[in-house]
Amino acid sequence: MKGWQFTKTHDPLELVEKENPKAEKDHVVIKTGAVGLCHSDVGTMEDEGWMSLMNAPVIMGHENAGTIIEVGEGVTDFKEGDRVAICPTGPSGLAPGYAYDGGFGTHIHAPASDLVPVPDELSIKEAASATDAGMTSYHALFNRGKAEKGMKVALIGIGGLGQFALQAAVAKGIEDIYAVDTSEKAQELAKKIGAKEVVSDISELADKELDLVVDYAGFDVTTSKALETVKPGGTVILVGMGKLQTTINVTDFIVNRKQLLSSVGGDKEDIAAIYELMATGGLSPKLSEITFDEIPEGINRLHRGEVQGRLVAVYDES
Amino acid sequence: MKGWQFTKTHDPLELVEKENPKAEKDHVVIKTGAVGLCHSDVGTMEDEGWMSLMNAPVIMGHENAGTIIEVGEGVTDFKEGDRVAICPTGPSGLAPGYAYDGGFGTHIHAPASDLVPVPDELSIKEAASATDAGMTSYHALFNRGKAEKGMKVALIGIGGLGQFALQAAVAKGIEDIYAVDTSEKAQELAKKIGAKEVVSDISELADKELDLVVDYAGFDVTTSKALETVKPGGTVILVGMGKLQTTINVTDFIVNRKQLLSSVGGDKEDIAAIYELMATGGLSPKLSEITFDEIPEGINRLHRGEVQGRLVAVYDES
Repeated sequence: MKGWQFTKTHDPLELVEKENPKAEKDHVVIKTGAVGLCHSDVGTMEDEGWMSLMNAPVIMGHENAGTIIEVGEGVTDFKEGDRVAICPTGPSGLAPGYAYDGGFGTHIHAPASDLVPVPDELSIKEAASATDAGMTSYHALFNRGKAEKGMKVALIGIGGLGQFALQAAVAKGIEDIYAVDTSEKAQELAKKIGAKEVVSDISELADKELDLVVDYAGFDVTTSKALETVKPGGTVILVGMGKLQTTINVTDFIVNRKQLLSSVGGDKEDIAAIYELMATGGLSPKLSEITFDEIPEGINRLHRGEVQGRLVAVYDES
Repeated sequence: MKGWQFTKTHDPLELVEKENPKAEKDHVVIKTGAVGLCHSDVGTMEDEGWMSLMNAPVIMGHENAGTIIEVGEGVTDFKEGDRVAICPTGPSGLAPGYAYDGGFGTHIHAPASDLVPVPDELSIKEAASATDAGMTSYHALFNRGKAEKGMKVALIGIGGLGQFALQAAVAKGIEDIYAVDTSEKAQELAKKIGAKEVVSDISELADKELDLVVDYAGFDVTTSKALETVKPGGTVILVGMGKLQTTINVTDFIVNRKQLLSSVGGDKEDIAAIYELMATGGLSPKLSEITFDEIPEGINRLHRGEVQGRLVAVYDES
């Protein structure tokens, strides 16, 4: 097998050849079909803070889907030939591309406990693209936020996460779904996806009696205004880390019985729920496709902000 | 009947005589047995912000207990002679002493929906004392915070609310209960009540893996440090409004899946639960007793910070 290996911060990824992995107990070997590239990959390359998470040297890539080519002892839920994705924050507690070799390599040796079946209706690149941003945005809105039909919900930040959440909310029939973004491009996109109303400042939604606001931006003022804008008894979910601190209005927070929750990552159930929305056609993320060889340049393109939609490296599926 | 009537901010309470109330539909008339005095009464007298809450002129007093002397049409759960307390944030949505004449008067005409039975084991002054600070502190810790045996819990601010909560926690068998206060006097009290450990700064409890922190102080730094100190997945409940803003560390909040909830007031079930703890002897709040005539001076004493324990005006129970 071959893969793009990370050794340390600031060093370029290195193309390495390794022995193909053998499936150990409770593990499977996956032939990688597609791998998503993520802004956190840029972070890993540039910011020393990530080193402590890396079991370096390690082949990166944490948004993985592919086909099982070997199952280890004790694996009963999956078999050779199954198309699967890997939940990067699954029950094993180990993240592909960080703790063990991920999908920037042609083969992945993964714990069976973290696998999610990919429905027939989905391409392998769609499956890969939903494992991180999809899962994270879905988890915040539906698992932590308990969004459902009939609720009045606003999403702040219609970037990678927010777009996905907005599509999922529309697909799930949440009619009173509002979008907030300062960028005109993002606002246009939000309208196209089907937001009921699009504004540049959450405070403009003060008369909407919002039950829930998910702040995918996290730019301090977005969070504090979200808390002030949500209706009495309402909830704000903080996901984005645009700023390192946020300041909240205590009197309003207490007197109006509000709550601020955080959300990070997600679980296999989130991924499975997204796949269902994708399979029924309600959800179709925008993807930009590259090849295995273009992965290092893909990370550079992400770094320069040149990518529209989710960047996915698609491997030869033969 | 007679009572101490509020007309407007800064004006002294006036002793008025009125016709005794008659029980209207779904209401009862209570002969006031005891009424608690509260720091918010000082606020009402001094701070114009409270005027909007007052149905002035109105007889003040929101911590009430006494004996029913008449029941109106449609009241089935209570009868003449029953000893009851009034939940000040009950289902009617009306607060005695604000929306209608309260217990600074000898008789109260109250909605039956807001009444809580007083167990035989309790004196009427104990019953009155638990309706506000008791209810509020209990609600934050046990209803919003879901504190229970086996959890590791810290309480910040061992004042009127915190003391009560600490006693209740000890009475309910929560062994890992920690107390935080900067005042030496409060620290001594917390030790006496039975806190496992008493510190002056919540950060000193960083190694305790706290599941829950209730911040009865709300002095900004108390809340932000509480959030940093609580264990991953943990909860902070904000009750006190010592400062009007609080600043939180976003990265830790998100990455460690923490949550910040608010709590205000409580309900009849909180009061009933406290009465049970009082009846079984686990809880006995410290009270300072005055007479009906001493109510205005009692408010002044509260204002000057001269009161130890809960100040309760006890009426002739004959």
